[in-house]
Order: sequence, then C-alpha cells, then structure tokens
Amino acid sequence: MKKIMTLAAAMLLCISAFAQQALFGGTQLKSPEINPDNTVTFRFNAPKAIMVQLTGDFLPSVKRETQFGTFDAPGVVDLKQNDKGVWEYTSDVLAPELYMYSFIVDGLPVKDPANVFEIRDVNSVTNYFLITKEKGDKGNLYSVNEVPHGTVSRVWYDSPTLGMKRRMTVYTPAGYEDNPKAKYPVMYLLHGMGGDEEAWINLGRTSQILDNLIASGAAKPMIVVMPNGNVDEEAAAGEKAGGFAQPSMMHEGMMDGKFEQSFPDIIKYVESHYRVIAKKSSRAICGLSMGGFHSMHISCYYPDLFDYVGLFSAAIMPNTNPGAELSPVYKDIDNQVKVQFSKNPKLYWIGIGSADFLINANDEYRAKLDSAGFKYTYYPTGKGHIWENWRIYLSQFAPLCFK
Amino acid sequence: MKKIMTLAAAMLLCISAFAQQALFGGTQLKSPEINPDNTVTFRFNAPKAIMVQLTGDFLPSVKRETQFGTFDAPGVVDLKQNDKGVWEYTSDVLAPELYMYSFIVDGLPVKDPANVFEIRDVNSVTNYFLITKEKGDKGNLYSVNEVPHGTVSRVWYDSPTLGMKRRMTVYTPAGYEDNPKAKYPVMYLLHGMGGDEEAWINLGRTSQILDNLIASGAAKPMIVVMPNGNVDEEAAAGEKAGGFAQPSMMHEGMMDGKFEQSFPDIIKYVESHYRVIAKKSSRAICGLSMGGFHSMHISCYYPDLFDYVGLFSAAIMPNTNPGAELSPVYKDIDNQVKVQFSKNPKLYWIGIGSADFLINANDEYRAKLDSAGFKYTYYPTGKGHIWENWRIYLSQFAPLCFK
Repeated sequence: MKKIMTLAAAMLLCISAFAQQALFGGTQLKSPEINPDNTVTFRFNAPKAIMVQLTGDFLPSVKRETQFGTFDAPGVVDLKQNDKGVWEYTSDVLAPELYMYSFIVDGLPVKDPANVFEIRDVNSVTNYFLITKEKGDKGNLYSVNEVPHGTVSRVWYDSPTLGMKRRMTVYTPAGYEDNPKAKYPVMYLLHGMGGDEEAWINLGRTSQILDNLIASGAAKPMIVVMPNGNVDEEAAAGEKAGGFAQPSMMHEGMMDGKFEQSFPDIIKYVESHYRVIAKKSSRAICGLSMGGFHSMHISCYYPDLFDYVGLFSAAIMPNTNPGAELSPVYKDIDNQVKVQFSKNPKLYWIGIGSADFLINANDEYRAKLDSAGFKYTYYPTGKGHIWENWRIYLSQFAPLCFK
Repeated sequence: MKKIMTLAAAMLLCISAFAQQALFGGTQLKSPEINPDNTVTFRFNAPKAIMVQLTGDFLPSVKRETQFGTFDAPGVVDLKQNDKGVWEYTSDVLAPELYMYSFIVDGLPVKDPANVFEIRDVNSVTNYFLITKEKGDKGNLYSVNEVPHGTVSRVWYDSPTLGMKRRMTVYTPAGYEDNPKAKYPVMYLLHGMGGDEEAWINLGRTSQILDNLIASGAAKPMIVVMPNGNVDEEAAAGEKAGGFAQPSMMHEGMMDGKFEQSFPDIIKYVESHYRVIAKKSSRAICGLSMGGFHSMHISCYYPDLFDYVGLFSAAIMPNTNPGAELSPVYKDIDNQVKVQFSKNPKLYWIGIGSADFLINANDEYRAKLDSAGFKYTYYPTGKGHIWENWRIYLSQFAPLCFK
C-alpha cells in the first residue's frame, strides 16, 4: 500500500518535472555505451537525418590545413542508421583516457543529448567520457574512486596589487577538516591562455588525480590552489559581475608581468586562511602553456618562494628585447634564472610533447640550462599541446613534490 | 617591440589551442544578444537547414497533451534566415528572470553553440540567460554583482546511518573566513526528485541570491547546506564512484524515511566542522517538491531542531495507511505535527503556485493546520512546479530566517 502510494506520487512528480522543466532533449538512448571490451558505441536518434557523423579525439587524426599552418585534427566517421531510425557507431578498443567527441548531423555539430557529461574549454562545450581498464591506469586515475575525497572550494581572495577581489579554486586533501592541527604543503597550479580558475579542476581532473594519488600513497597530502591568471577579470565567465559575456582566448595584460607581480597576494591569502607549511620546501608552482610561462617567471622573480617548479608545455619565450617598457619581471632574465638555480630548487621539471608547437622554444631553453649546468628533470611525451598531456604531467609532477 | 612579440606568441598559442582542443562548435556569432530594451536576439548559423526554430520558457506556453494529462509546455517560434545563411529571431521585451531555451533545427533539438552557459536539470542540459533591469529585481538578485561573495565548497561528510561518505554543497557567507570567532546560523536547503547536491547551487542560483540578499542587509549572513537527498547515491552523477551513469529521476528509497532518519548525520558534520550557532533558533530547513516533503517530515520528526521551516511546492502526501511497514518517520503524522507546533516554531512557511499539480495537497494540508489553529505563513504565486517559483521562494524565505 505504502509502496504503491509512494510510487504513484513519485510518478506524478516525475511527469511534472519532465513536462515543465526538463523540456529539451530528454532521451532514453544509451550513448556513449562503454562495452566490456572497451569499444564504445555511440547512438543518436534522428530518423530524418541524411548523414550523421562522429568526430572525437580517439579517432585517427587527419591533417587540417589552415592559413596558419597544418594541424592534426580529429578524424570523422559515419554512423549507420538502424531500422528504428537510430544512428550507431562502435569504435575500436580504446585505451584508458578521457575522450571528447561531438556528433555532426547533416554538417551541423550537435552534442549528444543522451550524455549530460560535458566540459567547457575556453568558449566551446564538449561531451566527454572516460575509459579505464585497471587500477592505476590513466582512466582510473582520472575517475572518482572509492577513496577519501578532498574538498573543492571556490573562494574569493583580495588582490591589492590588481585592485580587486578575485575568484580561485582550492582543493584541500581528505583529512584536512578532521585534523585541525595538521599543516600542509601547497601546489599552485596555473592554467593556459583562454583558461581560468575552472580549467584545471574540470579539464584537468585535478581533484580526482590528487584524491587517487594521495590515497595510494603516491603523492603527499597537499593543498592545490588554482587561481585565475587573467589579470583583466576577477573570475571565470559567468562568475563575474557585468553579465554573461562569452569566455575569450585573449585578455589584456596576459603576459606583461602583472599576474606575476600580483602572485604574492595569492600566497598571502592562502597562507593566512589555510593551515599550510609556509616555507620554500613546501611550495610548488606549475602550469600549462601560458601557466608554464607564468610558473617560470614567478619562480625566478621570487627565487626564495618555490622549491618545486613544473613547466608543462610551457610558452617559454625568452624576452630579449631591451625596451624600457619591459616589466621588471622579464628583465635580465638570464641572470634571474642564474640566481634561482644558485638557490638549488629541489625540482625543476619540464614536460612537453614531441608534436607541440612550443617544442623548439623548450629545446632552446633546456640547451641554455644544460650549458649553464643547471639541473632539471625532463619528461618528454608524444603528441602536442593538449589536455591529454597536461593531465599526464600533473600526474607525474605531483608525486615528486614535497618528498 | 615587446607588445608585438607578446601578441605574436599569444596568437600562436591561440591558434594551436583552437585547432587542437576547442575543436567542436566554436563560433563567432553573438547569441543570445540581450538588446538595450531587453528584447533578446537569437542567432544560429545553419546555411543548409530547412527550418530553424526556438523553444524557451519565455515564449507563450502551449497546452501539451500526454497520456498522463495536459501540461503547459513552452511555445515554439520560427527563426528567419538572413542573406548570410544565419537564422535570427528577436523576442518581445522580457521581464527580469533566468530563462532557458533550445534551438530546433529541422526537428532536432540543438544547443546554442554561441552560448557556453548551460545548466543541467536531472538528465537534460539546457542553455540559459538572465534578464535584469534594475537593482533588486529578480534578474539582478540572480546575477553575480559587485558585492562580497561567499565561498562555495563541495565536501564529503560521513553518514554512519546510510553507511557511506556523501557529497554536499556548502555555502559560507562572505566574511566567514575573515572573522574566525563569528558563529553563523544554518539553512538546510533540499532538492526535489531527480535533483542532487548540484541542483540548488546551479538551477537555484543559491550563492548569487544569498550574496545579494546578505550584501543589501535583507538577509542575515548564514551558512547554506545543500545535501544530496537520494539515499541510494553518495554523490551526483559524474561525482560518484562506478562510472558515468546518466542521472535518474527515480532513486531507491526516495521517500521511505531513510533520508529523514539520516539527517542528524548531516547536522552533526556541519556543527562539528563549521562555526555555527547550534540551536533551534539558528537552524532552518526548507526544500522544493520532494525536498519540501523531506523538510516537513524532518522538522516534525525532530521537533526540537528547527525554528524555521519552508515548504516550497512541497510534495505533501499525508501518509494515512496503517501498514506495519510504515517508517516511524511517517507514523502518527497528525500527532507529530501537533507536537511540532506545540513547540512554537518561529516560522512555518508554505509557498506554492496556482498551477502546481500539488496545489490540492497543499490546500488540504493548510486546511488541517488552519482547523488546528497552527500558525504558518502562506506565499501563493502564479505558475506551476518550476524553478522560477523555487528561486522566488528561496528569495522570500531566506530574509525571514534568524531575525
């Protein structure tokens, strides 16, 4: 009796909610379906479509010519329509990884209405899924597992240098709240151009990677601070005052020294609001692309602050022009690096992919370090300037910190 | 010189990131464009489409017949194609509100590729935008403004009653971190069927509403706790172990007393991990639909815990069946309510829309309270079982708490 009443009531609620709220695009199809052998079946319901295709970064890449050069772009495959009007495609066996994909229906990119899981990268939003095979593989490292979970917070810190309150994402490890006397080391993790304080936690799977590395004992419990590196905005698009401007790749003052000079504001906030070990041997700074550029310059402009430095596909652009306008952050950079290395950082880590357009700049920088006899760890990978590499670099770098 | 170098470098990064990462659906169109008069222009680039339409909750609703009855559904309008192949539609002047919409291209629901702002409601993801006119209107209340911002955290608490660690969203008001001796009242804010710990913070605009109400002095600074009310899952879809199952409307044990009985676990965690005023006069509980049902039952099963109770479009289903299976939470409910009101809660608040399918159940419940002489505040609105109403109820209820 009770069960029937509950069910009836539930049904009523269900219908109403669907009819009035979840109006757009609900579907009963399963897509993507990850099969037991790690092939993946994609399904799309479009009885009247003439052609349904799929593009994704798990498909063999194709060369795409642009006015700026030739790039690798994900391939495109055709789906086949079954007798119910549903289009289907089953992939090859996929290796553990986070993959992104989109349908193309009669030439139009369309998200998968059966998959609510999406990530925003700058100004595009894309469906994704995860493949995992066994404990410890990449897909498993990026998954939510049955391990203790850290807390993820969005906090607003004061930046007197930039004259605004600014939003950042902070990960505190499992156990932080229950051990009120424990103090923790801090990793500052910086995004690339077009990113913001949401990039690493979403595209980078930072909380999952750290939860898993810490649970297995591979990494020390640490706080991870993910600030917004665009000095012209206080927060990510949608999270700042002034309406819903779409996110932009370009920001005023991205690489002119201002972010680097404001960095002590972030450290000050973190060290006065969290229980941290406030010394060089318990601070790491790392970042991807522009965030690698920022990490390089912050760590050498403030050579006493960080013992662990990670450059992930870093936009290394030795600034040799002698203009009077040059920010002090970039002045006399060769000498600044010399000072930094004279203070013996415990780890200076460089990771980059062989197909990255920044590989030459990184090679030149490494040659400079080599010729000066400065020690660093080099972690070369395949592929290019992509999140697949940046998740790997974080997974490799974090366990080396604070040991 | 320096500027040119920076620009060139930026460009290079930009191209690469677009080419390799943001592969799907990037566009230069502006859509939706909110015009100065608060009409809104929608644009969609599909030169080859035969028909492009728009549906949204700002369009005059139409009656939709289903096997379960007739419901109001958002209307549909046609876009017109301009000479560049871009489809356009400009709305009437819209009143301040958060609106949701979708394109329909040759019969297929398609998200707006020019708008990264989306919200998930149960298992569908929909574009949205906000209209605001002046300070204090609904749209303004739901916007990020230049006011002090609270912190939003996802934390995992231990529920011995349910035998698992569970995820919840916690809002701490601006100033919480900088006033280490201050103690705060707590509002427990519960989602409806198909929702989870992400519903109120996203669809409900809780952090924006609270930031704005607190900044204007309309509401007291308070902590807002948004747990997951589905006892069969430890976290929202995508945030729990076991892979990426799509979110479901139905959950085992949704309304069988288990969530209510486990509620002290949540209070215990909050009161031992945050600086709260741990007494009845500083605790509020409120929720929408199933969350209203939960709020009603939790507050009367534990009549000494909450002085502020808010039922928002509550799924009030007086449980009169005498089965032996009945959870003690629902047993002898008339007497439990009597006990609750004998303890003089400071505020018992009921809000519901005139078109809500639960209006009769709410009317019956209010008649019962009336005949017993129990005092409550009634806040009737128009429309039905929709988030538009639930944001209004939160905005109305929060200022009345803890005064």
